[in-house]
Amino acid sequence: MEIDRIKFDEKGLVPAIVQDIYTGKILMLAYMNKESLEKTLETNTTWFYSRSRQKLWNKGETSGHVQKVKRLAFDCDRDSLLVEVEQVGPACHTGQMSCFHNEILIDNQFESDDKNITEDLYEFLKERKANPVE
Amino acid sequence: MEIDRIKFDEKGLVPAIVQDIYTGKILMLAYMNKESLEKTLETNTTWFYSRSRQKLWNKGETSGHVQKVKRLAFDCDRDSLLVEVEQVGPACHTGQMSCFHNEILIDNQFESDDKNITEDLYEFLKERKANPVE
Repeated sequence: MEIDRIKFDEKGLVPAIVQDIYTGKILMLAYMNKESLEKTLETNTTWFYSRSRQKLWNKGETSGHVQKVKRLAFDCDRDSLLVEVEQVGPACHTGQMSCFHNEILIDNQFESDDKNITEDLYEFLKERKANPVE
Repeated sequence: MEIDRIKFDEKGLVPAIVQDIYTGKILMLAYMNKESLEKTLETNTTWFYSRSRQKLWNKGETSGHVQKVKRLAFDCDRDSLLVEVEQVGPACHTGQMSCFHNEILIDNQFESDDKNITEDLYEFLKERKANPVE
């Protein structure tokens, strides 16, 4: 089984990057143990291990902001996961689409209108993916 | 200073997701300590802490496959980083663009030609970003 190749750390965890498969936006980073990874594959929704609450959680179970898993891959070192999802609603508990909203550095080039063009195109791609034209 | 808000773990590390700012592709996940984060911000190229070699490394120093940092952000929990870069050459030591090339699960929908349309558009965006049209 492919998941037996994954190297969990000394706490039995592996970091999982969650990316919106339509827009390419990074939504969050959380941790999976073997059980939560198995549940993710079984249910096609994301399950993580909460380090603070020390138990499994199914993302969106209470908020309804579920993540439908479309692709799951591991890296060349076999110690991190990339989970590509269809995100329902915002991913962050703050109500933002992504948890990564605290900027430390940004190149001037990416503050321009150019960024909006990219985002518009991403939105177009998302819409086209959800509703393919024959 | 913004970086004092970041919560490094008990080993002094924080996971850093590296994403291609033009294509949205996730390139790799590596770890930074405070020193490597400071060097990243100083040099605008990525510096990580190698857990196996127990020392700092400047990505691309020997291969030439450097990562020019365009945006750096931390998440709502302040315990993971997102580094958006302009990647020179492939990011993975295997020669692949991304380290995440081992698929465990893929939805049929994303194996179709549709995926190529998305990738073509990403390539178009990358080219347009690198060479903006007035």
